[in-house]
Amino acid sequence: MKLATLRIDGGTRAVRLDGDVLVDLGSPDLGALFAQDGWEAHAAKATGQTWPAEGADLAPVVPNPSKVVCVGHNYTNHIKEMGRELPAYPTLFPKFADTLTGPADPIAKPPETDALDWEVELVVVVGATVRRASEDEAAAAIAGFTVMNDVSVRDWQFRTVEWTQGKIWQSSTPVGPYVVTPDEVGGIRPSLEVKTTVDGRVMQHDDTGTLLFDPVYLVQYISTIVQLNPGDLIATGTPAGVGHARDPKIYLTGGETVVTEVAGIGACVNQIVKES
Amino acid sequence: MKLATLRIDGGTRAVRLDGDVLVDLGSPDLGALFAQDGWEAHAAKATGQTWPAEGADLAPVVPNPSKVVCVGHNYTNHIKEMGRELPAYPTLFPKFADTLTGPADPIAKPPETDALDWEVELVVVVGATVRRASEDEAAAAIAGFTVMNDVSVRDWQFRTVEWTQGKIWQSSTPVGPYVVTPDEVGGIRPSLEVKTTVDGRVMQHDDTGTLLFDPVYLVQYISTIVQLNPGDLIATGTPAGVGHARDPKIYLTGGETVVTEVAGIGACVNQIVKES
Repeated sequence: MKLATLRIDGGTRAVRLDGDVLVDLGSPDLGALFAQDGWEAHAAKATGQTWPAEGADLAPVVPNPSKVVCVGHNYTNHIKEMGRELPAYPTLFPKFADTLTGPADPIAKPPETDALDWEVELVVVVGATVRRASEDEAAAAIAGFTVMNDVSVRDWQFRTVEWTQGKIWQSSTPVGPYVVTPDEVGGIRPSLEVKTTVDGRVMQHDDTGTLLFDPVYLVQYISTIVQLNPGDLIATGTPAGVGHARDPKIYLTGGETVVTEVAGIGACVNQIVKES
Repeated sequence: MKLATLRIDGGTRAVRLDGDVLVDLGSPDLGALFAQDGWEAHAAKATGQTWPAEGADLAPVVPNPSKVVCVGHNYTNHIKEMGRELPAYPTLFPKFADTLTGPADPIAKPPETDALDWEVELVVVVGATVRRASEDEAAAAIAGFTVMNDVSVRDWQFRTVEWTQGKIWQSSTPVGPYVVTPDEVGGIRPSLEVKTTVDGRVMQHDDTGTLLFDPVYLVQYISTIVQLNPGDLIATGTPAGVGHARDPKIYLTGGETVVTEVAGIGACVNQIVKES
């Protein structure tokens, strides 16, 4: 299944993609859907109002997750381009719900930065409540996968040792368009092409099969620390090719179209707009 | 005013402390109260059911904030004990709502750590929606102040360069007991004694007047990055005297009572319990 959160009539609805239409699933968004017992069977068979998929205005797949945990240093090539050793543990940092934006929304370049950068990521979408999950529990807690562009404000990110202030900018981070269930992407440790283009130029290109810490491991690791709830998002890290690591560095200045894509899931397509 | 969130009848209620009773304010918690226009006038005059303050079971003052932003390196003495230079910018890191617990709740020492530590903090409680707040807007957005023990899992905190995984453990972080409005603590940049005791032994002792980045500055700085919402919490950092910086190091092993207190606001009093 491909699931999304549709903006409609001033609110949002959880929907299923059926061919070229979106079918109402009876919940206000995917976070609310995933919080229902037996959501998967319900989502598979629900019938309701439909809307055309083409031109649909999609929200972040989960507009208000209780937590967004991001992983740094998780693709071998990206670790090497940043000049680092392979780590023993995943590096974790946060985003907040206010940081998210829709998969096709424009992204404002804040006037406070001249170092706006892209990071394509495969995102694990949590579909159950888990704490200290076993491997089987972690696997079963994965509702599906989506795409994030972990847009980063590099000058603020590196002002201090903690990256948080470069990672939580308002409405900076598109996530979507769809949550695709594991059965449609080859399972809970999918091997999928990931790619970023900026105005058509390929900037990042790798495969999620090369993740150091895979989706199941990450659910286990993070749930050791804190409870994961339905709708929580785990961004699994970005491959080589970010603008900050290039020589010369390349940053987004406004006017560009950035496409972050994971094969089999879809793409976030976002125009960068100068914030006045 | 002193405001709190009371656990009662399987739910919670926003309350005002009047002498030795708690008065119902008509909202389920302080986050919901602060989201109301004119909450301060309403909270000052509301009358409703009362409960005795003594022995009341208090929740985290805001049980479900949209964000908890914590500041590191903000007391001169603590920066020096960690061997660091005075910073040009505040260091920010997160907590999530699931990380919070009540001001008198027991705190489970997770079996995964042998390096559990304390950090008393003055917390700014946000009472309005602000983005890129001016100094006046930031001052007006401060609903009041409360106390946090930013309980830290040091071995996990220092596994990677990002502290997040040592700072977000489930139900590890008491916050409360009361939100005290600025007029009762000397204003929006209060100078208040802060103190931690462990089984009666004073471990931390400083004054919030020595903060490098004061409450108003922090609201301005963080709101430049992301919108602050009513009920959001900004933990302003901890003074010298944490267990990890002592020689020899001291960690919480279970059985201790930790009291983190800010004069004029109150104390979190938490017993450390070994998690089985």
